[in-house]
Amino acid sequence: MKNILQREIPETLEGIGELEPFQGAFTKLRKGWMEEKKVPPPNKATMPHSSKMCSNLKEAIIRTKPRNGMTVSFHHHLRGGDNILVESIRILAELGIKDITLASSSLTSAHEPILPYIKNGTITQIYSSGIRGEIGKAVAQGVMPKPFVIHSHGGRVRSVHTGNIKIDLTVIAASAADVEGNSTGAHGPSAFGSMGYAVIDARYARQVVVVTDNIVDYPCVPQAVTQNFVDYVVKVDSIGDPSKIAGGTTRITKAPMDLQIARLAAQVIEHSGLLKEGFSFQVGAGGASLAVAKYIRKIMKNKDIKGSFLLGGVTSYGVDMLNEGLFKSIFDVQSFDAAVSSSLLTNPYHIEITAGLYANPFNCGCMTNKLDIVVLGALEIDTDFNVNVITGSEGYVRGASGGHSDTASGANLTVVVCPSFRGRIPIVKEKVHTIVTPGESIDVLVTERGICVNPNRPELKENLIKGGIAIKEIKDLAAEVEQITGKAKPIENGERIVGIVEYRDGTIIDVIRQVK
Amino acid sequence: MKNILQREIPETLEGIGELEPFQGAFTKLRKGWMEEKKVPPPNKATMPHSSKMCSNLKEAIIRTKPRNGMTVSFHHHLRGGDNILVESIRILAELGIKDITLASSSLTSAHEPILPYIKNGTITQIYSSGIRGEIGKAVAQGVMPKPFVIHSHGGRVRSVHTGNIKIDLTVIAASAADVEGNSTGAHGPSAFGSMGYAVIDARYARQVVVVTDNIVDYPCVPQAVTQNFVDYVVKVDSIGDPSKIAGGTTRITKAPMDLQIARLAAQVIEHSGLLKEGFSFQVGAGGASLAVAKYIRKIMKNKDIKGSFLLGGVTSYGVDMLNEGLFKSIFDVQSFDAAVSSSLLTNPYHIEITAGLYANPFNCGCMTNKLDIVVLGALEIDTDFNVNVITGSEGYVRGASGGHSDTASGANLTVVVCPSFRGRIPIVKEKVHTIVTPGESIDVLVTERGICVNPNRPELKENLIKGGIAIKEIKDLAAEVEQITGKAKPIENGERIVGIVEYRDGTIIDVIRQVK
Repeated sequence: MKNILQREIPETLEGIGELEPFQGAFTKLRKGWMEEKKVPPPNKATMPHSSKMCSNLKEAIIRTKPRNGMTVSFHHHLRGGDNILVESIRILAELGIKDITLASSSLTSAHEPILPYIKNGTITQIYSSGIRGEIGKAVAQGVMPKPFVIHSHGGRVRSVHTGNIKIDLTVIAASAADVEGNSTGAHGPSAFGSMGYAVIDARYARQVVVVTDNIVDYPCVPQAVTQNFVDYVVKVDSIGDPSKIAGGTTRITKAPMDLQIARLAAQVIEHSGLLKEGFSFQVGAGGASLAVAKYIRKIMKNKDIKGSFLLGGVTSYGVDMLNEGLFKSIFDVQSFDAAVSSSLLTNPYHIEITAGLYANPFNCGCMTNKLDIVVLGALEIDTDFNVNVITGSEGYVRGASGGHSDTASGANLTVVVCPSFRGRIPIVKEKVHTIVTPGESIDVLVTERGICVNPNRPELKENLIKGGIAIKEIKDLAAEVEQITGKAKPIENGERIVGIVEYRDGTIIDVIRQVK
Repeated sequence: MKNILQREIPETLEGIGELEPFQGAFTKLRKGWMEEKKVPPPNKATMPHSSKMCSNLKEAIIRTKPRNGMTVSFHHHLRGGDNILVESIRILAELGIKDITLASSSLTSAHEPILPYIKNGTITQIYSSGIRGEIGKAVAQGVMPKPFVIHSHGGRVRSVHTGNIKIDLTVIAASAADVEGNSTGAHGPSAFGSMGYAVIDARYARQVVVVTDNIVDYPCVPQAVTQNFVDYVVKVDSIGDPSKIAGGTTRITKAPMDLQIARLAAQVIEHSGLLKEGFSFQVGAGGASLAVAKYIRKIMKNKDIKGSFLLGGVTSYGVDMLNEGLFKSIFDVQSFDAAVSSSLLTNPYHIEITAGLYANPFNCGCMTNKLDIVVLGALEIDTDFNVNVITGSEGYVRGASGGHSDTASGANLTVVVCPSFRGRIPIVKEKVHTIVTPGESIDVLVTERGICVNPNRPELKENLIKGGIAIKEIKDLAAEVEQITGKAKPIENGERIVGIVEYRDGTIIDVIRQVK
């Protein structure tokens, strides 16, 4: 069967079960929002005054009674410095556990040491918002017996609620915790900021282990995860490489083309009609996206506009805008650099939020649904504005769905910024290899070679033209790019489906086939 | 059948179903803690940028689609000033809704206007931690067709998790909220402090309405309830009588006998071996209980002892001790007086907690399980140390289970303070009318006429004797009291069971029979 974007979706898939084809960003919500299945979080109980402390991670994992076929989850807030995921998988492998489903909120370069465990059957399936590097290459080549599942940040929470992801064990790294497991990422030598992705795991996992390099006096304040969800606590020497956890600072790009695109995007936003008193805003941390914030900040100061909230992955640039009074608040599900932690710790209007509050489509008011303007990147975008942020030009998995489709669906104005081509590889093209975010959610594309407005937003096009912004038809832009780069060489795929891309509502927006 | 305390419990009860007899404070937890049934919180979804605002409470309630047989829940943080419960029931009655189960975390004197709706079949069952006044009299007289259920604060959360209380609609009063339903009780003209009991309702109710007299700019900070759980928001002129919501200040008793008992209790605590660096502490707000804090404070200062946390219902007296550095933190599930709100708002170590974190026995670390010392009151206590805090000398319901059995079960030292008799009515006696907290959880009884130690705590008795404290056998004390008051006139009961007292684990510790 084909989904509404004409992607071929099988009715069932071994290792997954029945698949429901994507029907449009809000079709399923409109139809069956209260009827969707859901599972209860577990009951647990402990005797009063019993200790949760374990002498090491292995002891804790043994006490959770791991078994073959289990699902183990992690958060990725330690960024490229994370040591806990790899160490936990190593211990499980050492214990002889096989057929693990790995459900990490994302996978980064720090996780490449698990590759041998993917190859030897310790890990047989992955649920994640992103996969990169060698792991992304291996899974695209079909190294795992069961298809991997790419979900959005909001979709992950929905999947835990519905039981599609049924977590047996979650190992939660914290930069500070007390002996009962109250924990935070907001302070300590390995501070990493928000723990927003971990909270749903803590609530739903059958067993919850908190790991920290920094046991603090009871009670740990603030508390991102509270003790009533934590089974075991482990003090380790290190939760990872502090220079990669806490050292990073997100800087605005100096690449001229990115800056040019960002400047154009800021003009688009300025004339969109949505940059007004009380607006809310999210930008990605990468390349041109973050740079847009720089120009928006200038415009806000010039025009004396004050925004309501900044959302999302938060950089120190966002914190500066909060401190300057340009925005009233920040809702922080993930801190992109270390400088954010102290703001999170001290400013009550820098609010740590859970991934559910951030983006779960199956609750009555995720933040992305209240967002006015979001600026997002793309690996590819097609002439229907469908965006690929997951597979690269060779067909390997090398990106993340993240909050892309979540924010794009909710925001009043979704701006995609990207170059029209990279090297000799077209970015704007007739057909993207993998769709993550449907074109219906994208309002405008900004490239160095032209700005294209989604035809379903005629009033936006009108506003931009009034503002003196030249608009190009996206088909014309794609043709122009093809003239420069030549036709993109098609990726040589096998027929076997090695992964699926789940839309935030649980329907399947695309599949990923084995790369030859 | 008889439960372990020899109370006769029927196997089934119409309007309730099967009953499980109480087996001991932790027997059930030891046996079946992971197997207990549980229900999922609902999925919900709304379209982006849709409004939750309703023009009045009636409109909001109509939009939640009320129906006969529904369960409606409320929190009781507005104390004696609450107007929202009564107003909601009035609206439901006006809409012709019948057979409502009322699940309020407690019922106070402010709720007496619902009595006609109990009598006319609008409300046919009550789940609550406490019932008082005219309602308590009426339900004991059998005015409702279905038995009411008295639960503890922790037991209520367990019941929501297990689906015993299945909330169709919760109406949550807040002293500040924004248009999305982020809400708090910590500030605003009707500030009442912690909203700890409301959070579980917000998460599990099919429909959630937030009502406030104080809409603040988005976002409302702090957020006790977050927008992802709120369906509708209503601005009303008044959520109740501010002088009774916000005006109250808990003062320490000046009654000489209460002060005498409190002084004795403080001596008991001092010599118990548990009043030491890092101890945690909870006292009730009433009579002798709160007065104990006064003496403990003196002892702590004299001996230079610093505690870890204060728990529970929080008074301004507790806040003073926090500010003096006598305790490191306060965990606040309910603020007993208005002066507490500003501390909750500004001091990060004054931590608002949910009722689940406070006392739910079916999670892996409620706060009551970490408590060292608790001081509790009693309406009656028997020679096995079983405590009645729910029925008065005429058999009417006139009290609250509250956190009594929760804290008593968890604390290392549970001290009951009460006079040995009131008027001509014995308090210490051979058999209490209704058991709420089992004697096994009570370690020591302090009265003006003697101090009695539970025989299952021989080491405590030894410590107290070493400290120069005279100990009396509780049977001797009861006999002494009977000599003074004469034998208590037995309450004239019918056979019909009009209510049950659920222990925190869901088993039945006692039943309440119709008063003739």
